[in-house]
Amino acid sequence: MEKQSFTDLTAKLRTFASERDWDQFHSPKNLVMALSVEVSEIMEHFQWLTEEQSSALPPEKLQQVREEIGDVLIYLTRLADKLGVDMLEAAAKKLEVNRVKYPADKVRGSAKKYTEL
Amino acid sequence: MEKQSFTDLTAKLRTFASERDWDQFHSPKNLVMALSVEVSEIMEHFQWLTEEQSSALPPEKLQQVREEIGDVLIYLTRLADKLGVDMLEAAAKKLEVNRVKYPADKVRGSAKKYTEL
Amino acid sequence: MEKQSFTDLTAKLRTFASERDWDQFHSPKNLVMALSVEVSEIMEHFQWLTEEQSSALPPEKLQQVREEIGDVLIYLTRLADKLGVDMLEAAAKKLEVNRVKYPADKVRGSAKKYTEL
Amino acid sequence: MEKQSFTDLTAKLRTFASERDWDQFHSPKNLVMALSVEVSEIMEHFQWLTEEQSSALPPEKLQQVREEIGDVLIYLTRLADKLGVDMLEAAAKKLEVNRVKYPADKVRGSAKKYTEL
Repeated sequence: MEKQSFTDLTAKLRTFASERDWDQFHSPKNLVMALSVEVSEIMEHFQWLTEEQSSALPPEKLQQVREEIGDVLIYLTRLADKLGVDMLEAAAKKLEVNRVKYPADKVRGSAKKYTEL
Repeated sequence: MEKQSFTDLTAKLRTFASERDWDQFHSPKNLVMALSVEVSEIMEHFQWLTEEQSSALPPEKLQQVREEIGDVLIYLTRLADKLGVDMLEAAAKKLEVNRVKYPADKVRGSAKKYTEL
Repeated sequence: MEKQSFTDLTAKLRTFASERDWDQFHSPKNLVMALSVEVSEIMEHFQWLTEEQSSALPPEKLQQVREEIGDVLIYLTRLADKLGVDMLEAAAKKLEVNRVKYPADKVRGSAKKYTEL
Repeated sequence: MEKQSFTDLTAKLRTFASERDWDQFHSPKNLVMALSVEVSEIMEHFQWLTEEQSSALPPEKLQQVREEIGDVLIYLTRLADKLGVDMLEAAAKKLEVNRVKYPADKVRGSAKKYTEL
């Protein structure tokens, strides 16, 4: 498979929905519900595992999780496209915000929320 | 801001976690919980809106949703990285599977699940 | 079926887990994950429906949703039990808080969050 | 506070919504979104905790979780009411189904899903 990009994925998802006349269902409200459902399909694989087990999935389980991650990215990309949001830019900006909220020398080794620091 | 790529984001998130000694918290189990929490922060903006309103957010609300989408992509990227999953490839493959499950001429205009077709 | 009560359900769930030696899996962390997964199983039924359709489910679909609601209540009851929380009291108290946060004459017909009032 | 019952809570929530003219927002579709958002507010407290820590919350944290559990029960009760579902009966029936799916002598000490047994 050729190297994928976000732009390619966005375009392919548009075509996929359009060919099926599915844009009528793809309101942001509905897409966020679908996104949430797909995240839970990942979660279902992890709910009874210890953290340690979650880091060492057997190959068959990992393959199932890989497919669910694909589904999550599909709906996230679709949601961002419908809202006109550049996801990668949004993530990069948020990371900059987090650098300020969580200064490395202040939070090292702590999982507290910035409001609790 | 320069053009972002997935590879860049993955690398930046590794550095961010490493500088804060946060890898100890970033088990896949914990990351999928964080991912789910961030998706709900998007959902909170949409829960009482009609579908139509969800497609026409006022600018301030859209900016908040943009930031939450950034958070979701951050945790999704981090989860995929920890599991060794190539998200874009996973999404592209899943899309191929969906093409077969949902043939355009069979599902046009219907939101039924493939098990109900 | 005899009239059920919360206390009965809590007790039955304890026995059910104990007979299966499942308390080892029922940490609050794991139970909240399971609760979230079950809520998504309800959500999956509603994601592509209009609000109007969601209020008029066909009987077969309603039966499926009923079972998922049962699952959600099971995990919520189990989580509350493990944390020593009286759910009904917690809900009643929260309702009192909400009465103050959302005075009827101020919020009538508006879905704004109290922080936006 | 007097002893609460489910029936009381359902009735109080009806009055609460009616006084605020909020029934227009309380479609089952919207209520399941709100339910999911509230579950995530519980989850946020647990995402970075170990399972052991999740079983021994400090009092202040436990109080916050108690309030979130109240919110979850509120939306679950409201959703069930709008759908005409008797939650306690649904949970009791589901428990009977689970007794058959997961026979104690077959699943003791295992967290496998019934489809994997």
